[in-house]
Amino acid sequence: MTKMAELAPKNFLWKVEDRVASVMLDRPERKNPLTFDSYAELRDTFRALVYAEDVDVVVFLPNGGNFCSGGDVHDIIGPLVKMDMKELLAFTRMTGDFVKAMIGCGKPIISAVDGVAVGAGAIIAMASDLRLATPEAKTGFLFTRVGLAGCDMGACAMLPRIIGQGRAAELLYTGRTMSAAEGERWGFYNRLVEAGELEAEAMKLARQIAAGPTFAHSITKTQLNQEWSMGLEQAIEAEAQAQAICMQTRDFERAYHAFVAKERPVFEGN
Amino acid sequence: MTKMAELAPKNFLWKVEDRVASVMLDRPERKNPLTFDSYAELRDTFRALVYAEDVDVVVFLPNGGNFCSGGDVHDIIGPLVKMDMKELLAFTRMTGDFVKAMIGCGKPIISAVDGVAVGAGAIIAMASDLRLATPEAKTGFLFTRVGLAGCDMGACAMLPRIIGQGRAAELLYTGRTMSAAEGERWGFYNRLVEAGELEAEAMKLARQIAAGPTFAHSITKTQLNQEWSMGLEQAIEAEAQAQAICMQTRDFERAYHAFVAKERPVFEGN
Amino acid sequence: MTKMAELAPKNFLWKVEDRVASVMLDRPERKNPLTFDSYAELRDTFRALVYAEDVDVVVFLPNGGNFCSGGDVHDIIGPLVKMDMKELLAFTRMTGDFVKAMIGCGKPIISAVDGVAVGAGAIIAMASDLRLATPEAKTGFLFTRVGLAGCDMGACAMLPRIIGQGRAAELLYTGRTMSAAEGERWGFYNRLVEAGELEAEAMKLARQIAAGPTFAHSITKTQLNQEWSMGLEQAIEAEAQAQAICMQTRDFERAYHAFVAKERPVFEGN
Repeated sequence: MTKMAELAPKNFLWKVEDRVASVMLDRPERKNPLTFDSYAELRDTFRALVYAEDVDVVVFLPNGGNFCSGGDVHDIIGPLVKMDMKELLAFTRMTGDFVKAMIGCGKPIISAVDGVAVGAGAIIAMASDLRLATPEAKTGFLFTRVGLAGCDMGACAMLPRIIGQGRAAELLYTGRTMSAAEGERWGFYNRLVEAGELEAEAMKLARQIAAGPTFAHSITKTQLNQEWSMGLEQAIEAEAQAQAICMQTRDFERAYHAFVAKERPVFEGN
Repeated sequence: MTKMAELAPKNFLWKVEDRVASVMLDRPERKNPLTFDSYAELRDTFRALVYAEDVDVVVFLPNGGNFCSGGDVHDIIGPLVKMDMKELLAFTRMTGDFVKAMIGCGKPIISAVDGVAVGAGAIIAMASDLRLATPEAKTGFLFTRVGLAGCDMGACAMLPRIIGQGRAAELLYTGRTMSAAEGERWGFYNRLVEAGELEAEAMKLARQIAAGPTFAHSITKTQLNQEWSMGLEQAIEAEAQAQAICMQTRDFERAYHAFVAKERPVFEGN
Repeated sequence: MTKMAELAPKNFLWKVEDRVASVMLDRPERKNPLTFDSYAELRDTFRALVYAEDVDVVVFLPNGGNFCSGGDVHDIIGPLVKMDMKELLAFTRMTGDFVKAMIGCGKPIISAVDGVAVGAGAIIAMASDLRLATPEAKTGFLFTRVGLAGCDMGACAMLPRIIGQGRAAELLYTGRTMSAAEGERWGFYNRLVEAGELEAEAMKLARQIAAGPTFAHSITKTQLNQEWSMGLEQAIEAEAQAQAICMQTRDFERAYHAFVAKERPVFEGN
């Protein structure tokens, strides 16, 4: 059994409290860029989360007023420019594997965005399940500005489903920043909160979700992704099976007995 | 040939007028919960609608200021808690079959929501083609609150396509109520109308659609669902075939002749 | 190599300037309807664009205050009413092939909509990548009003992904006009601009995109369509491959060197 609370990552800050893990990139003076090492360690951490029994929700937090400035120009883009195809594909697959690990980790992920969230930073927010932001958040899928395509780490698949195909196309072709107000209006951000309250609000939401039926939450996450490209009839049958599984959990029974007793259910995630 | 006007359901109110069928759950003192029997009878009714020649549009109406409170806690959740897996899957498949029958019935469905629309009540609205609501509508995909997953009767597949992936995730993980204003802003509700006008507006919209080319409408409904997970090129070919079928209807000819004669076309659904 | 600048279409106005091609239908007195000939020539033009080296972005412009009134009632609908199934399918496939050619041409397409954009006119806007409009734009998927289904040229597949399933269903079942304000609010139009500035704004946006890494843009366009119905994990792998290709372009290197030199990158599309 993986004990996530004992994890001591080298490339980012990590804390587990009340069954909520928080991740904070830690180069605030550079607006928290990613490096080869932090990509790999994030991928491995989210892969380990699948088996973790001590974490139910994960939160990405900003640091020093910024979320994440994406792949570092000197540490990442410089070396990439010199790589051959085999090495390049190994890199793009590693970044893709990080997103796959986020999607497959079985725990809801909340991104709390302040300031800059660009490139891979915008992708981390996008690949999360829920997103809060401050009015100062600047979110940019700016791959086109560094000569690349918008199809990075799942953006051409996921962004259209979050904000609509037309708005996604604009962001991906122009690389322009999405303001916080646009992000909220378009459904990218679930809610805007003042910078001073962002961390508290994100943690409150995380604890609220962690207090729910967390086994059932993991099934919700599985199905949201599993049904991504399923036919409608197949999705309905898949949900019949998935929900029948949840109906055999004790959390379902706990909720029923609490309701009958006019109490508030206490879920235990099994 | 099924005569839907002659139907006399035991578990809900049913009326056919001007080729529009209306359904009204009938336990207003309990906010109109569903029971095992009403689920089954609704499923059978929508299955029969496929072959009906006397109904072109269906409307779900509220009763006593509420739409539907979902599966009854005493009549449904109590028994479920005691069932084995085979029985549970039979139940979740029955509820899924009701949604499949709504999707497959070939007639546009309008939900007119007032007050409470939660659990399976929210699903009925979601699985309809068009949705009106009053400012008092409270819509909740609250499965998580009873210890279950958000994947109920197609919600993880359909809700993201209606309101976007991020907003759907929030509703499904938290179980919180979507206000009527949010519902309209997010595209769940097509329009809000005052409670006093809801039924009249829904019936007016239903009659307007029923006055259109109803065979073509049934093809629109088929294609909206059929193309759910099709590739884009395949969807375009599928539409070329489907529309060619509609171009051989007399309704298409009627519209052309009416246009040339500067008259309003009278469609007959063939 | 196809020289698009030398093209002299018979059925619409065509201009290539600064690597941006513009298309303008040219029967403003009839609000620019389409004919059998203009459909076919548009299809062939967009098919040729795939191989064009002198065009990077395409813009559809309005003419005389209107965008396009769709298939001409006398030139198109009259003859269709008399056709047999083989001929009808040849027609619906030709119109579908035009949309497939727009999607497959490898260059971002911008529609600049003023006044009437109905039927196939609304489809041209829908099948574009980006859409600007004036406050006077009236967009109508009015197929139902001529006795047909909403599934025309990809509408049942594409419109729900742009504006959401519920709003798309309303437009397709009722045939009602979407106002410009609704279009912007729902994500169909990226932005509204005054009529006097529409053409200039559309051309400015086109030149801005054409000044970007156009090979990478063509990959963005490919992936947006390619991933339409892919599973999420498959899409992420597809993007890893597609982006690795872009990382071997000189535009990526140019961007890096410009960044290091604190200059603005000059992209060349290779």
